[in-house]
Amino acid sequence: MEEDSSQLAAKPETPHNMEAETEADGEEQEQDPESNSLRQPLLLKRNRTLSSSPLALVGAKVSHIESLDYEINENDLFKHDWRSRSKVQVLQYIFSKWSLAFLVGLLTGLIATLINLAIENIAGYKLLAIVGFIEEGRYITGLLFFTGVNFLLTMVAAVLCVCFAPTAAGPGIPEIKAYLNGVDTPNMFGATTLLVKIVGSIGAVSAGLDLGKEGPLVHIGSCIASLLAQGGPDNYRLKWRWLRYFNNDRDRRDIITCGSSSGVCAAFRAPVGGVLFALEEVATWWRSSLLWRTFFSTAVVVVVLRAFIEICNSGRCGLFGSGGLIMFDVSDVKVSYQIMDVIPVIIIGIIGGLLGSLYNHVLHKVLRLYNLINQKGRMHKLLLALSVSLFTSVCQYCLPFLAQCRACDPSFPETCPTNDRSGNFKQFNCPPGHYNDLATLLLTTNDDAVRNIFSSNTSNEFQVFSILIFFALYCILGLITFGIAVPSGLFLPIILMGSGYGRLLGMFMGSYTNLDQGLYAVLGAASLMAGSMRMTVSLCVIFLELTNNLLLLPITMIVLLIAKTVGDSFNPSIYEIILELKGLPFLDANPEPWMRNLTVGELADAKPPVITLNGVEKVSRIVDVLRNTTHNGFPIVDEGVPVPGTIATGATELHGLILRAHLVQALKKKWFLPEKRRTEEWEVREKFNWVELAERELKIEQVAVTREEMEMYVDLHPLTNTTPYTVVESMSVAKAMVLFRSVGLRHMLIVPKYQGAGVPPIVGILTRQDLRAYNILSAFPHLARSKAEEKLY
Amino acid sequence: MEEDSSQLAAKPETPHNMEAETEADGEEQEQDPESNSLRQPLLLKRNRTLSSSPLALVGAKVSHIESLDYEINENDLFKHDWRSRSKVQVLQYIFSKWSLAFLVGLLTGLIATLINLAIENIAGYKLLAIVGFIEEGRYITGLLFFTGVNFLLTMVAAVLCVCFAPTAAGPGIPEIKAYLNGVDTPNMFGATTLLVKIVGSIGAVSAGLDLGKEGPLVHIGSCIASLLAQGGPDNYRLKWRWLRYFNNDRDRRDIITCGSSSGVCAAFRAPVGGVLFALEEVATWWRSSLLWRTFFSTAVVVVVLRAFIEICNSGRCGLFGSGGLIMFDVSDVKVSYQIMDVIPVIIIGIIGGLLGSLYNHVLHKVLRLYNLINQKGRMHKLLLALSVSLFTSVCQYCLPFLAQCRACDPSFPETCPTNDRSGNFKQFNCPPGHYNDLATLLLTTNDDAVRNIFSSNTSNEFQVFSILIFFALYCILGLITFGIAVPSGLFLPIILMGSGYGRLLGMFMGSYTNLDQGLYAVLGAASLMAGSMRMTVSLCVIFLELTNNLLLLPITMIVLLIAKTVGDSFNPSIYEIILELKGLPFLDANPEPWMRNLTVGELADAKPPVITLNGVEKVSRIVDVLRNTTHNGFPIVDEGVPVPGTIATGATELHGLILRAHLVQALKKKWFLPEKRRTEEWEVREKFNWVELAERELKIEQVAVTREEMEMYVDLHPLTNTTPYTVVESMSVAKAMVLFRSVGLRHMLIVPKYQGAGVPPIVGILTRQDLRAYNILSAFPHLARSKAEEKLY
Repeated sequence: MEEDSSQLAAKPETPHNMEAETEADGEEQEQDPESNSLRQPLLLKRNRTLSSSPLALVGAKVSHIESLDYEINENDLFKHDWRSRSKVQVLQYIFSKWSLAFLVGLLTGLIATLINLAIENIAGYKLLAIVGFIEEGRYITGLLFFTGVNFLLTMVAAVLCVCFAPTAAGPGIPEIKAYLNGVDTPNMFGATTLLVKIVGSIGAVSAGLDLGKEGPLVHIGSCIASLLAQGGPDNYRLKWRWLRYFNNDRDRRDIITCGSSSGVCAAFRAPVGGVLFALEEVATWWRSSLLWRTFFSTAVVVVVLRAFIEICNSGRCGLFGSGGLIMFDVSDVKVSYQIMDVIPVIIIGIIGGLLGSLYNHVLHKVLRLYNLINQKGRMHKLLLALSVSLFTSVCQYCLPFLAQCRACDPSFPETCPTNDRSGNFKQFNCPPGHYNDLATLLLTTNDDAVRNIFSSNTSNEFQVFSILIFFALYCILGLITFGIAVPSGLFLPIILMGSGYGRLLGMFMGSYTNLDQGLYAVLGAASLMAGSMRMTVSLCVIFLELTNNLLLLPITMIVLLIAKTVGDSFNPSIYEIILELKGLPFLDANPEPWMRNLTVGELADAKPPVITLNGVEKVSRIVDVLRNTTHNGFPIVDEGVPVPGTIATGATELHGLILRAHLVQALKKKWFLPEKRRTEEWEVREKFNWVELAERELKIEQVAVTREEMEMYVDLHPLTNTTPYTVVESMSVAKAMVLFRSVGLRHMLIVPKYQGAGVPPIVGILTRQDLRAYNILSAFPHLARSKAEEKLY
Repeated sequence: MEEDSSQLAAKPETPHNMEAETEADGEEQEQDPESNSLRQPLLLKRNRTLSSSPLALVGAKVSHIESLDYEINENDLFKHDWRSRSKVQVLQYIFSKWSLAFLVGLLTGLIATLINLAIENIAGYKLLAIVGFIEEGRYITGLLFFTGVNFLLTMVAAVLCVCFAPTAAGPGIPEIKAYLNGVDTPNMFGATTLLVKIVGSIGAVSAGLDLGKEGPLVHIGSCIASLLAQGGPDNYRLKWRWLRYFNNDRDRRDIITCGSSSGVCAAFRAPVGGVLFALEEVATWWRSSLLWRTFFSTAVVVVVLRAFIEICNSGRCGLFGSGGLIMFDVSDVKVSYQIMDVIPVIIIGIIGGLLGSLYNHVLHKVLRLYNLINQKGRMHKLLLALSVSLFTSVCQYCLPFLAQCRACDPSFPETCPTNDRSGNFKQFNCPPGHYNDLATLLLTTNDDAVRNIFSSNTSNEFQVFSILIFFALYCILGLITFGIAVPSGLFLPIILMGSGYGRLLGMFMGSYTNLDQGLYAVLGAASLMAGSMRMTVSLCVIFLELTNNLLLLPITMIVLLIAKTVGDSFNPSIYEIILELKGLPFLDANPEPWMRNLTVGELADAKPPVITLNGVEKVSRIVDVLRNTTHNGFPIVDEGVPVPGTIATGATELHGLILRAHLVQALKKKWFLPEKRRTEEWEVREKFNWVELAERELKIEQVAVTREEMEMYVDLHPLTNTTPYTVVESMSVAKAMVLFRSVGLRHMLIVPKYQGAGVPPIVGILTRQDLRAYNILSAFPHLARSKAEEKLY
């Protein structure tokens, strides 16, 4: 795995000695460990040893991450290949891109179906068994069975995660966000991760843990997309000719975006919501054609889900219940609200925002604590997961005994009481004709719990006491469950908490309001999601598609906007917090205001001098540079021929930028010349093709160069990207960052603003790391002082 | 009005003589007038005299258009102002931005309400009167009354448009699209335009013309936004201190985006659809915070509309009927479809795509023809509009007599027959107990016609013959109505046409299909819209919110995707066709493939040499440059101090870019120095403030400079944007265009790739015009040859 060049460190003494820099950085941080510990990434070795997985959830291993090349590498070979592409090849490319979008949708839909089926059946038979024990009065046996089965299921999920794919733990959404921003987290989209994620998700959700399959489904969608685009798992790739079109980061980025929206769509059966989620929350770059392609993928997912529901409606899916494309259908609620109802709606929004940011804050602390535990080793990870499972099971089983049994009312829309697997009025330990409202909420799958608490026209169903317990329990579970080493989504825990608080609020409002209590639960869930995740438009559409009630839209919107505004004034969104915790170098959309006061020239001065290569370079120098630096791109500078019509002497010329991978390829292919000369185009084409150039795995250590070869020359011109993006040194960092992010760069060259003999044609090179606020501030501490004042702008 | 600099012309002999270039261009085109007449913009004087309104619909006047400055102009004054902004000012800015978003939503909602009320009442009383005449058997009087009233209403709309605001004709969406892309069309967002658009829209829609209020509402929303941001109409602007924050193109762009999505939301009562429409179709730049703000605006619109519907439900709105937030409610349709139903759905999509692209093709021809007529003068414009009105009225009134009366079936869900204003079973000329199905579709408002043809569970209501006539009539009307000089939207004509063809197809399918005929109509409308406008996601959401039926989503998606794909293989979308017709220099998202083979250096060579100014420049030279060129930005080049540590001699330095407006301001303010020296910061701050610098109206002709002053100097440094975006001359045009568009530039400087004494620090400057494919191809004809081959990529 290569490492991205990051030349910006606080005055490193040995410019290209990675270890030295890392330690220097570590020290710098340790001087002041407490002052802003909440803002610091978890990793102390931050700068050069950025890790994809500082959280022990994904393994305590610190591994190098790599930036992605979203820029088109316009070198001679690319241009030639591109010119020589026939119409047929272009059609092949378009066709295979659409086919991939189709396949991503199809497979995501099928796997989502499989996961749903497995969960509903496993959890269903488990719950039916419990009902049996309860009916027979064997309460202790029931407790033991319930706890035991959940324990085993959690163990399966956790062992898989801990031993085979640490990256499969957690939701995976922050890493996908980082990938689409240009940061590649290792092992994130592998086949093992995919398998573990699927099985682990089934296990963890069936175990009744307070987590959802929604986040994991997004990750699963992205994994499928990535695997399809690269032609299979790393070791068994298909070498189809058609797939070679996707052997670049740009096309893979597009397909992974399709995958993530398919995942959201499969999770919530919300096709438009899926597209919007990818647009609002996940993706950094977006274009109209991508909108269309993601939409195609989600359409396929919906068709697959629908077909499967048709099949299941005829009873061939075991315990999988009926129900349509819509998960929590509240469309039969008569929504009628007046101006006065705006007041409770605003209150829901405000409280949701407060609770959401509080949740973010506390979860952040819990994750830091869990990280310490998880770093101690695999056994600790496992034990943590299993104790959470035990605690959850015991609470879910025992707490319903505290609730009073209530008599069934014949006006209830459903049969009451039931001993069925789902159902809104569970008999549990109650005498005939009575039901236990807390058992309805706790002793069921999470999906059913949400469905029950969202249920409308049932204002007397739940007691305040039961909902209070439900809310308190899920607050605790929501905090302690997320960080354990199993695949876990954040959506459902937040929906459960939010619906509890919403319904509670609806009860307290009592006769003041005309809104149904089920609606309060829906709005509470929405407000807490907006308060924690800070999405508005996509959440609104997801809720619209989830609840299938269009008249709810205006009040949902108000709730979401208020909750987001309130939440934003306290802390960043939960995904941003996780990104920061993991130390992933995510580039924000908006530059910090103090970045206007700094030029890229000053930034370049704080870095070691840039290393350039000549257009025709000696082999020994190339080997030397590759072995002793970790940079990923090197500017190519020629002794320039003077421009016609000018009187220039001793002119130099910026030819472009060459990638480390291409230098290594040139060495491996022995692209050597005995004398110093430029080559012809046919010579290069004989030696290289662009499929090979797209390979990035080769390392300099794997290439052997003989002593004679060391004295030979390499013509780097044909391999050089002649059109790198550049900025003049007087450019402000703020504007440079806008360029870097909106075009999607990996390297940005800095050219001098001066013209004259002896001025180098290039004064520096910037990478993602150099543009991160945290890194800049540690190199320019005086900027930090003005930071606090200008934060608001 | 300033004019954008466009230095790219085919070898002009007098570089700064505008007339010469324009004529040269005209000649060049006339050499080959027929070969690609469909692809040519309507204007022959293309290059320097680009017009906002070549179509006579908006006046045959050819006027100059201006590019917008979306880049942050980081000069010393800006930086100082920005540094000195207090927290209170920052909060003021944020607060007023949200207030504006709120006001835009509120006003758009209120005006949409007003328009709806007016149309429903005017058209309602008109139709009631007709019913009266028919009941009395006075058919001829009815015809005369109907035609006369429609004639008068059209006249009001057309006279207003022709005499007061030619820019109010048409939908306005292409111009908004161009504005958000960076092209300012003059008089597009004025107060007169707004008023004429409102009144004209009421007149034209009440007159029963085949056009909608949807497009105009988008324009109205944008007008409101623009007027609010600038503090009122041009001549009576409020000079509120808070509004000065919005005196720049960036903030205004954001607010106009809010306005356009509010407009769509008000038109379709589709808040999410409105946001997506702005995102997919209208806006060029987009960021997450904008998503949120537009969503807030649309939420306000929906709340206003809902409140108004509450009021109207209690009968206080005259003839305005009941109905909820949802326009065409088909939520009571039992949607059940099997795999086999995919086949008719695919057929609908394919035919929709074919018809849509055919419609685009023919409409293009019609618009070119209309343009010829409209250019002849105001009288011709008026006559054209009035003849279309006459034709429409006569057809709508007389054609129903051709239909056979049908007996009412007691199983019909509504009362039958009715003589009400709306209603699905109009008695018209039929005996009691019978209804005329064609009158139901034709003698009604367009909204009601759509509602009736979308009506479900009424498979026997319409005869094939009636629907055939309906479809044929609206095909003709849809083609001849759009180009006349009244405010006209494209959505409704296409929906009418599409629903006709869809229902027809449903009838032919007969027993083969399980889908309701109303659904066929809905899908037909969707397919034609996708086939013509080529939107998918936003259309899908609009249809979802329009029809309130979530289960329709998967099949709607399939239809939309197929129709768009089919349409795209024939011609561009209707908005792109109109943009091209109007000659608006819209920058596409994707560069043409042949642009990779051209460098910006070659482009700069084809232009006259760039004009630079010194950092401290003589007044006479500035006046000379301003009077004799039309460029809008001038690079500032200093005799540079050599960089420390280099051996440079005779070095030059690129200091930045100065705008024409700022040069004129400097002259007007007499910012003159007797000697050649650089100024201190306090001197500048005493003389200028950034509010004045934001003014763009001043012209060089309005500034008088005495002979003595001509010999003095101006220090341009503090007024210079020191951080312009630059590209190296070896950059390919394709990549430069991506940068230009994604960052939103007006000028892009080209720096040399060579370094050496005597090399100029700047080799050229590129503007929007230089990056347009059409302009490049006329300067580099050899590229055009390869164009055809590579088109597909």
